[in-house]
Amino acid sequence: MGATVEHDDDEPTASDEPGRHFVRSLERGLKVIEAFAVEKRPMTAVDVADSTGIPRAAVRRFLLTLTDLGYTRYDGRAFALTPRALQLGYSYLVSSPLSAVAQPHVEELLKRAQKALSKVSILDGGVAVRDQNEIAYVAYARGTSIFRLNISQGSRFPAWITSTGRVLLAVLDDDELEESLARTTLKSYTAATLRNCEELRSAILTARKQGWCVVDQEFEEKLTAFSVPLKDQNGRTVAALNLSTIHEPDRSPYESLLLEQMRATAARIEEDLRLVQP
Amino acid sequence: MGATVEHDDDEPTASDEPGRHFVRSLERGLKVIEAFAVEKRPMTAVDVADSTGIPRAAVRRFLLTLTDLGYTRYDGRAFALTPRALQLGYSYLVSSPLSAVAQPHVEELLKRAQKALSKVSILDGGVAVRDQNEIAYVAYARGTSIFRLNISQGSRFPAWITSTGRVLLAVLDDDELEESLARTTLKSYTAATLRNCEELRSAILTARKQGWCVVDQEFEEKLTAFSVPLKDQNGRTVAALNLSTIHEPDRSPYESLLLEQMRATAARIEEDLRLVQP
Repeated sequence: MGATVEHDDDEPTASDEPGRHFVRSLERGLKVIEAFAVEKRPMTAVDVADSTGIPRAAVRRFLLTLTDLGYTRYDGRAFALTPRALQLGYSYLVSSPLSAVAQPHVEELLKRAQKALSKVSILDGGVAVRDQNEIAYVAYARGTSIFRLNISQGSRFPAWITSTGRVLLAVLDDDELEESLARTTLKSYTAATLRNCEELRSAILTARKQGWCVVDQEFEEKLTAFSVPLKDQNGRTVAALNLSTIHEPDRSPYESLLLEQMRATAARIEEDLRLVQP
Repeated sequence: MGATVEHDDDEPTASDEPGRHFVRSLERGLKVIEAFAVEKRPMTAVDVADSTGIPRAAVRRFLLTLTDLGYTRYDGRAFALTPRALQLGYSYLVSSPLSAVAQPHVEELLKRAQKALSKVSILDGGVAVRDQNEIAYVAYARGTSIFRLNISQGSRFPAWITSTGRVLLAVLDDDELEESLARTTLKSYTAATLRNCEELRSAILTARKQGWCVVDQEFEEKLTAFSVPLKDQNGRTVAALNLSTIHEPDRSPYESLLLEQMRATAARIEEDLRLVQP
């Protein structure tokens, strides 16, 4: 093979090769990038190897390659991602019409809903999509409340604990739902968090039946989140529209009005999506 | 080599291999992801090959691998990025303290500046970093004006035409600046856009001298953008803080007050950054 260098991680093996086309070094390189989201700090090659389970020598090659390409920088001690990595996620946002189409509608909804419901403190609103066991915000806007949540476009949360996640799990067929529940690990965030898989299944089936979902103080004390589904031109639910409010002891004076406004906004987003993707 | 599959694109060659460690298939896989940001739509393997210059057979392997990993999906006709790709960019945002630290300060600045300057319509504010010839927003907030710019966290613009870009180019040393200018292609956005490299160099040197920058109607008619540098704990400028306003025929009644507020916010962000990265 002359002067070429052999990279063992570039050779697919039977054990981890989903198909003959599979490029394992791409999988590993992406894992290295994502390791920074898990650890949330600059890392040495050893740190990344520990975090990903990829052998150190291979991690080193990936980090040096990423540095050559400008995705990471090396200060002599640790590697850190650069803004170039931001471009990878931005590639999704600009190639998916959902984010651009939804953003102004979410902002408009926040203003309109806050005006209509002056006694309720609306914290924020967004549109989220499901990525396996998580949801990710593709559009996000903050209300005028002085309380703020640490959320932005791209923020991710476990699907099962969020109202958007439950709306998106509710549209799975029964087998897919059971499979997803089997992969879900419950965690107690507050005293109100659902305690077992049975309660969670029941909450998801309620969301399926009523076509919307509320998660009340389960994720955060004093936080109530509402979600309605967003459908594509084929009637398939592809995302969920969400509004969060400060918890009120009695939701009955405003819940139906809030949901009405959310459904109207969802219909507008769906209409705009049809114009973009006929 | 037994049962392993040979991937020609996994074998580094002298011509495109910056070092012995270089993993070319990682470079190509990332190029495939970024192609979606350029074309802004779902693409066939042929489209991606045309866009990237990577041979079709290799592109196909990368797209199938990305689909196996959940970064792209295939509808039988074209490939599209999924929200999983968003995680790659989000990895930068959560591992870089700048974004989280700056966001609330930018929101606060917008409110404070709009209150102090009631006669000026402040459109938005943000913090941007430079990535080669572009700037990327790592924090972003919209003002209360009914006019809105199509910008969000992750948005990218050519560095030379933006006030943040000029502040960030101004801190390069002379050789680096000349090199960057040599790589820059000017484009006429409005009647006010600088027309040649000489004018641009002069504008950047002015920004260097005065420690801030204004770009007035050069990028968009009626849009005036101000930027000040943001320094890390070593005094190195790593980002720029920006405010955009609707153009006013005479800036003198408010410019110095606006810059004063921006500098105060920059100082607060710098202080918080020192607390996070001592």
